[in-house]
Amino acid sequence: MPQVQVAIPGSAYAIQIGADLLAQVGPTLRELGLAGKAAIVTHPELPAAYTAAVHASLEQAGFEPEMAFVPQGEASKSLDGLERLYTRFAGMRLDRKSAVVALGGGVIGDLAGFAAATYLRGLALVQVPTTFLAQVDASIGGKTAIDLPCGKNLVGAFHQPRAVIADVGTLATLPPSELRSGLAEVVKYGVIADAGLFASLEREADRLVSGAPEPLTRVVVRSCEIKAEVVRQDPHEQGPRAVLNYGHTVGHALEAVLGYGAIPHGAAVAIGMSAAARLAVRLELLSPAAAARQDLLLQHLGLPTLAPDARSAVAAQQGGSAAPPGIPADQPLPPLASLLAAMALDKKSVGGRLRFVLARAIGSVEVREVAVEDVAALLGGSLS
Amino acid sequence: MPQVQVAIPGSAYAIQIGADLLAQVGPTLRELGLAGKAAIVTHPELPAAYTAAVHASLEQAGFEPEMAFVPQGEASKSLDGLERLYTRFAGMRLDRKSAVVALGGGVIGDLAGFAAATYLRGLALVQVPTTFLAQVDASIGGKTAIDLPCGKNLVGAFHQPRAVIADVGTLATLPPSELRSGLAEVVKYGVIADAGLFASLEREADRLVSGAPEPLTRVVVRSCEIKAEVVRQDPHEQGPRAVLNYGHTVGHALEAVLGYGAIPHGAAVAIGMSAAARLAVRLELLSPAAAARQDLLLQHLGLPTLAPDARSAVAAQQGGSAAPPGIPADQPLPPLASLLAAMALDKKSVGGRLRFVLARAIGSVEVREVAVEDVAALLGGSLS
Repeated sequence: MPQVQVAIPGSAYAIQIGADLLAQVGPTLRELGLAGKAAIVTHPELPAAYTAAVHASLEQAGFEPEMAFVPQGEASKSLDGLERLYTRFAGMRLDRKSAVVALGGGVIGDLAGFAAATYLRGLALVQVPTTFLAQVDASIGGKTAIDLPCGKNLVGAFHQPRAVIADVGTLATLPPSELRSGLAEVVKYGVIADAGLFASLEREADRLVSGAPEPLTRVVVRSCEIKAEVVRQDPHEQGPRAVLNYGHTVGHALEAVLGYGAIPHGAAVAIGMSAAARLAVRLELLSPAAAARQDLLLQHLGLPTLAPDARSAVAAQQGGSAAPPGIPADQPLPPLASLLAAMALDKKSVGGRLRFVLARAIGSVEVREVAVEDVAALLGGSLS
Repeated sequence: MPQVQVAIPGSAYAIQIGADLLAQVGPTLRELGLAGKAAIVTHPELPAAYTAAVHASLEQAGFEPEMAFVPQGEASKSLDGLERLYTRFAGMRLDRKSAVVALGGGVIGDLAGFAAATYLRGLALVQVPTTFLAQVDASIGGKTAIDLPCGKNLVGAFHQPRAVIADVGTLATLPPSELRSGLAEVVKYGVIADAGLFASLEREADRLVSGAPEPLTRVVVRSCEIKAEVVRQDPHEQGPRAVLNYGHTVGHALEAVLGYGAIPHGAAVAIGMSAAARLAVRLELLSPAAAARQDLLLQHLGLPTLAPDARSAVAAQQGGSAAPPGIPADQPLPPLASLLAAMALDKKSVGGRLRFVLARAIGSVEVREVAVEDVAALLGGSLS
């Protein structure tokens, strides 16, 4: 079974990746020296077989597991959702030796992670991601968060998990749109750090989108390796870790303006990467050929790219039937001013300038502060 | 001007203690390399001169200060209070280079500190304590928290301030009951670490209670030194820091059962220290003479002690006019079962046994897990 080490000084942990790993949750927690109560935070729509496997494994390992169900969807990543989870933790009488097991996708990982980071000033956390996006990205690196009405992930904590257990068997039940959403982040890893990974995505795009286990597992392992190395260098996002934000400056703004959940995260990131590549071309950092190659791969994976066809691509991503919710079908993408305002509120924005991760080539990026005018021109509008 | 260093590896900071220090807030933040926006979190009942001094000092040092007012009282240390503060931060457009200045007592420090720990996953925090209790205890050590309906400080984070600025001039406007409340924590420092400090409190009790600036300043400095050393050894409360909990096991339970704010924190801690001393005598750890000496000092400082006169002492602490709110005048202290249940929910309780800090002598303590029966017998009741 592949293991990837996240070698953060003082907070090192292992990512286990493979099939049939849900039964390893109990033994893993025991090996970590945890004992007593364990809160399994998950949502009620998760296949019952997963929940049962984790619960049984914890019981067999001598823990007292209890379920904490959270409604599915981004709305749970709120102060209200957090309050319900805290109240449940208090009802379970969790103490400082207790563990929190986050079983689900990114919403569960972020919410349960933040609750674990703050309840009793910090409980042990184990991430058990069951979506492709969470396995390649969200479950690793210790970033936890909730949303505020005025912005996504505005509140959170760095709280490294004690272990990550990625059972790739859970990917079999995912709809193709969720695979595509995760693949956007994998494209990101290729662009920021590994031209070889990028090339393998080009070769295997069709098999990946169809959910073939073998290439998916390889992609999870390589993605975890890349993210683990970036996080090791900069666990608190004070510098180098910013490269993980490639595609996310425009992507997050798009999600904020459309309303969280209106567009899949991966689709937003794909549009954001396409935008970032055009910006890099405009600034003469990236060759037009490389930008086109990235757009081609995204499209091959069924992901949207920026204008002129972004709106139809978004519609395609959502099933081809309709424009994204919140945008009438005969309207352009959200007004430029809204997107720019959302970018300025992003927590990585500093001092009013917009910070972008820009590619120099496939496999190499740098962080630059970019003038608002350049971003406005790129997005096809003007500031006046 | 006395400075006390809190030498936590990677998070070292200085505590400035002296008169007329509010004007140093701006220059201190500038020396720390902070810039841009600064949110001053305080409550509207604070003397306007303090707020104005801090605001002006930040402006003169080149910051853009903005006020965030929080209603006075423990009720603000809630998820609702937190949400209002987050919303204010978002309205101010704070970014990751911004600073949060907590100007006030323990409630402000805890709430603003937790908001700073979690907004954008962590902003720089400067504590400017204006109560004696906050200057000798709450502002140092990085513990931040809010309450849940089911328990005090159940949610929080370790977030060390970048600086603590304790202007002892602000103590002049405090009512005597607030001085007494802080002195309970100072007695604690004497018992856990410094027999000399304890003896000086015995000598100067009257001057301290009357608010004499010179002995109060000395006491703030020595208290900060003791707490700084304990915190340096154990910033995340994984072991040695537990000694700071002396008197707080019963104290916190009493506050919880009576309702937060119904009894001053210092009064609850005094009763808790008296209880802990009797428990130590019962376990043949402490001499009866030392326990009596502690009770005598507490009473000399106008603080309550445990039964048989705890109830009248509590009434005296609250002005002598009435029994504590929530307890009818002809009733005994809260039922034992309620106190024990509250202790079991305390976040330092592990595995169902009750953890106490117990004195071996004035100036020396140890941490012990104590059988529930011993605590029950001590508190004058039985479990049946």
